[in-house]
Amino acid sequence: MREKLVEGFRNGIVVPQGLIAHGRGEMFDYLLGERTTKESRIASRAAAAVLLRAKKPVISVNGNIAALCPRDVVHLAEVAHARIEVGLFHRTDERVSKIQDVLYEHGAKDVLGFLPDAKIPGLEHMRGLCSKRGIYWADVVLIPLEDGDRAEALAKMGKKTIAIDLNPMSRTSRASTVAIVDEATRAFPELIRNSEDLQDDAKAIGEAVKKYDRDTNLRLMAKIMAKNLSGFLDR
Amino acid sequence: MREKLVEGFRNGIVVPQGLIAHGRGEMFDYLLGERTTKESRIASRAAAAVLLRAKKPVISVNGNIAALCPRDVVHLAEVAHARIEVGLFHRTDERVSKIQDVLYEHGAKDVLGFLPDAKIPGLEHMRGLCSKRGIYWADVVLIPLEDGDRAEALAKMGKKTIAIDLNPMSRTSRASTVAIVDEATRAFPELIRNSEDLQDDAKAIGEAVKKYDRDTNLRLMAKIMAKNLSGFLDR
Repeated sequence: MREKLVEGFRNGIVVPQGLIAHGRGEMFDYLLGERTTKESRIASRAAAAVLLRAKKPVISVNGNIAALCPRDVVHLAEVAHARIEVGLFHRTDERVSKIQDVLYEHGAKDVLGFLPDAKIPGLEHMRGLCSKRGIYWADVVLIPLEDGDRAEALAKMGKKTIAIDLNPMSRTSRASTVAIVDEATRAFPELIRNSEDLQDDAKAIGEAVKKYDRDTNLRLMAKIMAKNLSGFLDR
Repeated sequence: MREKLVEGFRNGIVVPQGLIAHGRGEMFDYLLGERTTKESRIASRAAAAVLLRAKKPVISVNGNIAALCPRDVVHLAEVAHARIEVGLFHRTDERVSKIQDVLYEHGAKDVLGFLPDAKIPGLEHMRGLCSKRGIYWADVVLIPLEDGDRAEALAKMGKKTIAIDLNPMSRTSRASTVAIVDEATRAFPELIRNSEDLQDDAKAIGEAVKKYDRDTNLRLMAKIMAKNLSGFLDR
């Protein structure tokens, strides 16, 4: 993964801040034992349910996600009938264009974000830019590795959001409708599987939503990490 | 700090892997509450004692340290009568030379590392290069933000090492004689203060060493972080 990010960085897709953010995630994943927990699976199933119930789902893609798992993004968009939009915190037209190209190379039909014509209220100009046909229009937005300000601003717009974020204490996790605390390249395939599994099964979709409580789930994730941290040196 | 590192990166001092490593450290510091704990102070005092007792102390400097606190490195070297050597995991002559220049700009008299003429046994060729007059010769090496392989190899050579590392579970922390679990730009001034304070006071030096037990200290640091992690979502 580090190599993919460093390569993405050399190709102008990933920003230096994205490398630092990846390091923060690495630490949390290390505390998780670099595995998908039972709690993450419950969150992923609820996320799939919210995605499938959505009328206007959109997947927001940033540089790190484009570097790490572009094919998974395209695959999930197909399964969930979701649109794809490039959404960047450190936005430049060049970077949006490069990320679009990566997604097209991996089979995307339509990638929004290049000529933004709408704004997410409450964010500094460049950080709030988005597409009328994409994030602005969406009822549900999947926000993998999203910045806290953007995540909170989307929630304030009344949108349901699905976060993929290794930090159970982050504002992104805590502002989202469903927070999947898992590493992105594991979380995407899991979310694809769950979306395929729940497809057209209204009963199972209802159960997946009912089984999930965000704050309880985040608390359990934090406790797993805390246990690993405090137990490590006792072994 | 992020800005200093990104600037160091643009100047060819910091490598992409250094940015990722910084992110990992950020997370641990976040779990510490971004402050120097009582336990870190005890470790810092013991570290100062070990430095002052050393006959041949050397400070190893990498890209992140040169970007973050070059003046502190020079200041500590003066106080502890230590030599300075550039020690890199991802070594290129160009980067060594640039880091030397930064240290000279901040007042260093002599910076070793550019024409390595010795090797740390047990490391891959480029990673083991060092100076006969510096790290190879040293009895005590200060290794802020050091890679685990290098830290272990130095310990195997019989050298005492003083780590500055935010991860209490890292191989660097656990292989060192004294492990200061603190953020580098806070740890350096603290170490300078303690070195000034203990200077020429053999009794206080002895007490500082006696008061410190590495494994107990690391365990306490991990527990502080674990408590913050598990308590966060209960508030």
